[in-house]
Amino acid sequence: MDHNTVSVKVALNAWQTNIDRCTKLINGLSDDQLLKEIAPGKNRGVYLIGHLAAIHDVIPEILGLGRRANPILQPTFIDAPDKTIDKIPSVSELRQVWTSVHERLKNEFLKMTPEAWFVRHESMSDADFEKDPTRNKLAVLVNRTNHLSYHYGQLILLK
Amino acid sequence: MDHNTVSVKVALNAWQTNIDRCTKLINGLSDDQLLKEIAPGKNRGVYLIGHLAAIHDVIPEILGLGRRANPILQPTFIDAPDKTIDKIPSVSELRQVWTSVHERLKNEFLKMTPEAWFVRHESMSDADFEKDPTRNKLAVLVNRTNHLSYHYGQLILLK
Repeated sequence: MDHNTVSVKVALNAWQTNIDRCTKLINGLSDDQLLKEIAPGKNRGVYLIGHLAAIHDVIPEILGLGRRANPILQPTFIDAPDKTIDKIPSVSELRQVWTSVHERLKNEFLKMTPEAWFVRHESMSDADFEKDPTRNKLAVLVNRTNHLSYHYGQLILLK
Repeated sequence: MDHNTVSVKVALNAWQTNIDRCTKLINGLSDDQLLKEIAPGKNRGVYLIGHLAAIHDVIPEILGLGRRANPILQPTFIDAPDKTIDKIPSVSELRQVWTSVHERLKNEFLKMTPEAWFVRHESMSDADFEKDPTRNKLAVLVNRTNHLSYHYGQLILLK
C-alpha cells in the first residue's frame, strides 16, 4: 500500500470511527435526554445533532460530489444559535436525517480514489491552492472529523 | 510538494491549530474557573488539562522520540478519574507542564521527515504493522488530535 493510500485511509478511519461512536451514543439516548442542555445554559443535544447533520450535509458540495440533500437545516442549525428558532425538526426527524446524511457520505467516500483527496476543495481558487496545497479535500475531512469530536465530547455529557 | 508531504502537513496543521486554540482558551480562563466542573457532576477543567498534558506527554514514547518528561502525571490524570485523588498539582503547575509538553512536541515534530510518519508506532509489532499499515505514527497524531478536540469541546463550556 503506498503512502498516499495509507494517509487517506488513516483520515477515513478516523472519520468513520468518530461517526460510528457518535451514532451509537445518539441511538442510546432518548428523545427526552436529547432535548436537555449539555450543561446549564448551553446548547441542547437536539441542536448539536441538527448542527452536525447540517455541516455534514454540506460536505458533498465542498468535495464536488453534488448538492446537499437537506438545505432546510442551514437556517436553523448553522446560521442560528440554539433556542432562537421556535419551530425546529423533531428528534425523530433528525435521527432519520443523521442516518441518511452519513450513509450518503460513506458511499461517496468509497467511490473516491486516494488521489481525489489531494485535489483542491470547491471553496478554494486554483491560484490560492497553488500557494497552499494543504487546502485540499483531505483537509476538509480532517477538519470535519475534529469538529465532530468537539461536539461529541459535549453530547456525551447527556449520558 | 508531493502528496506524502501534503498529507503530513494537513495532519500537523490540524494538531497545531487545535493545540493553539486550546492553549488560548486555557490562558483566558482563571484558576478559579478551571477548578469548576464542565457540567454538574462531570470532570473539572483542571483535571482535563492534566489529562491532556499527561496523554500528550506520552506521545514521544509512542513515536520513538524518547521518554516522557512527566511520568508523575499518569496515576492522577490517566489511571484515575477526577475527584478520586486528594492531592493533585496546582493549576499554575499544570499551566507550566502544558507549555513545556507542547513546546517539546512542536520541536520534535519539526525535526521529523514526512516519511518518518509512515513508520509503525512503538506499541505495534512488525507483524501486526505488515497486516495493517495504517497503524503508523500519522494515525497516532490524528487520533490524539481528535481526542484533544473532544476535551476542548468540554473545556470551552467553562467560558
